[in-house]
Amino acid sequence: MQSHQHMHCLVTGGAGFIGSNLVDRLLEMGHKVSVIDDFSTGLMDFLKSTLENADYKSRFKLYRGDLLTEQDTTLQRVFDESKNGIDFVFHLAANADVRFGLDHPKKDLEQNTIVTFNVLEAMRRNGCRRIAFSSTGSVYGEAKVIPTPEDAHFPIQTSLYGTSKLAAEGLIMAYSEGYNFQSYIFRFVSILGERYTHGHIFDFYKKLLVDPYHLEILGDGKQKKSYLYIGDCIDAILMAIEKATDDKVNVFNLGTDEYCQVNDSVGWICEHLGLKPKLTYTGGERGWIGDNPFIFLDCSKIRKIGHQPKYSIKDAVIKTLEYLKNNKGILNAR
Amino acid sequence: MQSHQHMHCLVTGGAGFIGSNLVDRLLEMGHKVSVIDDFSTGLMDFLKSTLENADYKSRFKLYRGDLLTEQDTTLQRVFDESKNGIDFVFHLAANADVRFGLDHPKKDLEQNTIVTFNVLEAMRRNGCRRIAFSSTGSVYGEAKVIPTPEDAHFPIQTSLYGTSKLAAEGLIMAYSEGYNFQSYIFRFVSILGERYTHGHIFDFYKKLLVDPYHLEILGDGKQKKSYLYIGDCIDAILMAIEKATDDKVNVFNLGTDEYCQVNDSVGWICEHLGLKPKLTYTGGERGWIGDNPFIFLDCSKIRKIGHQPKYSIKDAVIKTLEYLKNNKGILNAR
Repeated sequence: MQSHQHMHCLVTGGAGFIGSNLVDRLLEMGHKVSVIDDFSTGLMDFLKSTLENADYKSRFKLYRGDLLTEQDTTLQRVFDESKNGIDFVFHLAANADVRFGLDHPKKDLEQNTIVTFNVLEAMRRNGCRRIAFSSTGSVYGEAKVIPTPEDAHFPIQTSLYGTSKLAAEGLIMAYSEGYNFQSYIFRFVSILGERYTHGHIFDFYKKLLVDPYHLEILGDGKQKKSYLYIGDCIDAILMAIEKATDDKVNVFNLGTDEYCQVNDSVGWICEHLGLKPKLTYTGGERGWIGDNPFIFLDCSKIRKIGHQPKYSIKDAVIKTLEYLKNNKGILNAR
Repeated sequence: MQSHQHMHCLVTGGAGFIGSNLVDRLLEMGHKVSVIDDFSTGLMDFLKSTLENADYKSRFKLYRGDLLTEQDTTLQRVFDESKNGIDFVFHLAANADVRFGLDHPKKDLEQNTIVTFNVLEAMRRNGCRRIAFSSTGSVYGEAKVIPTPEDAHFPIQTSLYGTSKLAAEGLIMAYSEGYNFQSYIFRFVSILGERYTHGHIFDFYKKLLVDPYHLEILGDGKQKKSYLYIGDCIDAILMAIEKATDDKVNVFNLGTDEYCQVNDSVGWICEHLGLKPKLTYTGGERGWIGDNPFIFLDCSKIRKIGHQPKYSIKDAVIKTLEYLKNNKGILNAR
């Protein structure tokens, strides 16, 4: 995506955490942006200033629609109303919840795999062939090689979430090979920062507001996890699309070159809030079934094209906490 | 599956090529067998002698049903009517056609991925937790390491078929981890032998019956492919289930320790039929988009537990040809 070339981008899930941050950036760069979101987890608040910005009036369009059911024809309408067509799809709409997959096993299949198929088919029907996709480090399961590179061992899946994203990746790859799409697949670690709406900081902060003297931690607290700041994540995505090769399929791990323990994160949060809660642990090296005790991605591929995160994991944790402190409404939005 | 212990097995796709051969073997071993098949590619002929066998009357039950739509409740009926429950599911129902995936992109997703999900959910609902699954060497895409071991590099998918099977594998793995299933995933090369109903021998023989003096070959004929005889395939599946570890997920490549070129196979076929057709080639190292020019699996894992194929690729090709010669009706069955 060369910055001097303006495109019409479709961002699915554009009212979500990562989506809305991407939308802002694309509009700042001068691109035309259409968003489709079903607002099941996305929030209108995240697009409020964008919708109110007079400079964006002619370049920004928001559609409320469901990407799963064939009865909902909103996606086709986005293409129909695009005049010169959609140049690029950022497919971010997803069920992003890893932990509760086992409570509703069909949700990941539907929202992540089948929805991705529907988006690819709409693109094919309408002659749009460039797509970026938000995948996850969870596709590696419990990797044997850590830090884990993009071409690590054939994975054994441990979660319905990881499986559903792996399946979506596969569909995108097969469309790239079979129908000449060009694709950019990003395997994220957990993303932190402004508009963060679920995850451990969210949970811990919410618990500490209720009871500042006690904090229960899932597992033994020694799980090693990786995080990336949202601004760094968006930078990496845009840089990869601009600088990647002409390969049909381009896969990138996105993370920082460090990891931390859940206990480290708890320490930073409590220190920043000036709290000293008594910590209790549910025990075990996994916080829940399918929890991965060690996630750390080898990001040398994205480094080679020039991306370096500006913020450390600790920075990202603090920035997220500050955001939640200033936007307490988010804590009750779900 | 210890041979002294009789089980009630459900074979999905039990009227198909591999399914019906497995059904025969399971019944010979003394197991109780229920089959569900939609007869979209399966043939009643394949189960005819089994249905007519008086010894099997009390142990064999055939259901015609569709595993995709929720409106069809046949699968639940199989469990309801099983008295003491189903002990083991051999999930073989699938769209097994690799080549025409791009003509109807939804078919692989529906028949291979979503159907597998439906089978897993029915198992979970009914407390059945052991499953064997017919996957494919196509999940490796165009592998970087050949012969390709089970833990080869993270694959880049090149076909909708491979993708749909990879997704099904992932679901089975996630159910194994999340709901305590035990699973046996078999990545097949192409299977040959009695009741073979599609593939290159089928196509070549059919063409040669029409015109014995001319044969058109897709690609340059130098594609290197692997094959396994159906009897050896069934042996391997049953041996793996009997001897594999207690691991939740057991993945095995199934093939011979050799490969051949398409041209070799053409030579054996023509020699066996006493024909010398003029060969023409469509050209290119791939016969069609997504065709893998070199498939050769490392089968040392299944060898270690004692499985050795009895037939060579050439034997399997000749046996298949003999079967087709004696069952010409098959050639027009689809």
